Amino acid sequence: MNILVTLDSNYIKPLKVMLKSLFLNNPEEKFAIYLMQSSISQEELQNLSDYIEKHGSRLEVVDIDDNYFDDAPILLHYTKAMYYRLLAYKFLPKELDRILYLDPDILVINPIKELYNTNISDYLYAAAYHDFISVKEVNKIRLNPYKIDAYYNSGVLLMNLEQQRQSIDDKRIFGFVEENRSKLIMPDQDILNALYSKNIKTLDEILYNYDARYYRYYKIKSSGIHDMDYVINNTVILHFCGKRKPWKKRYSGKFHSLYKHYERLAIY
Amino acid sequence: MNILVTLDSNYIKPLKVMLKSLFLNNPEEKFAIYLMQSSISQEELQNLSDYIEKHGSRLEVVDIDDNYFDDAPILLHYTKAMYYRLLAYKFLPKELDRILYLDPDILVINPIKELYNTNISDYLYAAAYHDFISVKEVNKIRLNPYKIDAYYNSGVLLMNLEQQRQSIDDKRIFGFVEENRSKLIMPDQDILNALYSKNIKTLDEILYNYDARYYRYYKIKSSGIHDMDYVINNTVILHFCGKRKPWKKRYSGKFHSLYKHYERLAIY
Repeated sequence: MNILVTLDSNYIKPLKVMLKSLFLNNPEEKFAIYLMQSSISQEELQNLSDYIEKHGSRLEVVDIDDNYFDDAPILLHYTKAMYYRLLAYKFLPKELDRILYLDPDILVINPIKELYNTNISDYLYAAAYHDFISVKEVNKIRLNPYKIDAYYNSGVLLMNLEQQRQSIDDKRIFGFVEENRSKLIMPDQDILNALYSKNIKTLDEILYNYDARYYRYYKIKSSGIHDMDYVINNTVILHFCGKRKPWKKRYSGKFHSLYKHYERLAIY
Repeated sequence: MNILVTLDSNYIKPLKVMLKSLFLNNPEEKFAIYLMQSSISQEELQNLSDYIEKHGSRLEVVDIDDNYFDDAPILLHYTKAMYYRLLAYKFLPKELDRILYLDPDILVINPIKELYNTNISDYLYAAAYHDFISVKEVNKIRLNPYKIDAYYNSGVLLMNLEQQRQSIDDKRIFGFVEENRSKLIMPDQDILNALYSKNIKTLDEILYNYDARYYRYYKIKSSGIHDMDYVINNTVILHFCGKRKPWKKRYSGKFHSLYKHYERLAIY
């Protein structure tokens, strides 16, 4: 299975935790971990590669042609890395037909196979949106006049690379950013939603992009069905969305102990 | 290492979870799990034995001479099983010199070796007490005139069996129960404290009998040192004390997700 990650060196530790959880809960799979980055030292890369090989998988550092981004508009507080996820199809090997992008602030706590094999032949992506009224409405208004039904989260993104090579136009992406500079808050996610919302297959957020902040909300909304038992046994991807991260001091949340458990397994 | 457990059939599932956590976090150890019980079917015993052997350890069902308890006073709501823990030394093989008793409502989340090898040559037991003012004071008053400095929790009990064979007098235990019928709330724990408090080596509760209900309290009391990071990396025994248990519906607590994680590993 092909996994795509993009990161800077602040995120190497969480990335290892995410990968550890992926490996542990998918013991029969071998993964090719494609990494898009521009700031990580050779030593750190070697260390990461050793780590992944120790688990029977392999790291593939993606070659990024830096000149390619010469004409791309750059936003305040963002680097060109904000385009990596959406333009990955340009830099990944031509023979790959699909890849699963995963944020590093994730735990993979159950087998990922079914997600990976989701039928996306008629789509560019598969993703989940977080079905909280506030999130949906605020973003709909913000991205007006681009019509979106849902605001997809780009932290878990199954990509149909074949289709993307045919349909995605990087000029259109750069143009969109140029025109909407002032509106964009989470640029890659905003681009994804404004331009490609109609080409995204919706995934079940409870299974594939469970927002770890909202245990109580999910449980109440499901009349108790999505309790801790359900999550631990069914949810594949726990996503630690938001500013507060479980690897930082002062974090608190329903999955804090579970995260620290995987962190211990990953680091020690 | 010798581990002692006592249980009825309602606790087989939690027992398996406890054992799973013990095995996983002590991969280099082999355990002899001594079980004292009187209500478990042959089929369940076989299943439990298979489970333990699958993990490279072995189950030893302790033979209990039922006649032995003929003269023992029985309390309302309790069976003679309430004596198993304290009188285990009578039924365990004579060649055992130490054993670690563990409640089934426990997770063992780090290596147990250091605890097991604690020097207890001058003691009958090693145990921890929960240092909450209310617990200590209430029990001191309740067990008056027996003078106790602390009220030890009997859920994790390292036993010096050699010493116990020489010093513990079952008649004294039965006499104590007879005389204090109306006072006893947790009989085995009350007996332990009233009669043997002076012969107990104190263990660090944070490491060896962490009450999972009191994360916030422990953290504040230690000025933040005993945070989640500390617990996951140092605490050996997480104890889910109290009426609400993490395998029941409606449980909620800081270690809920971690417990369910081990439960999944244990059961599926």
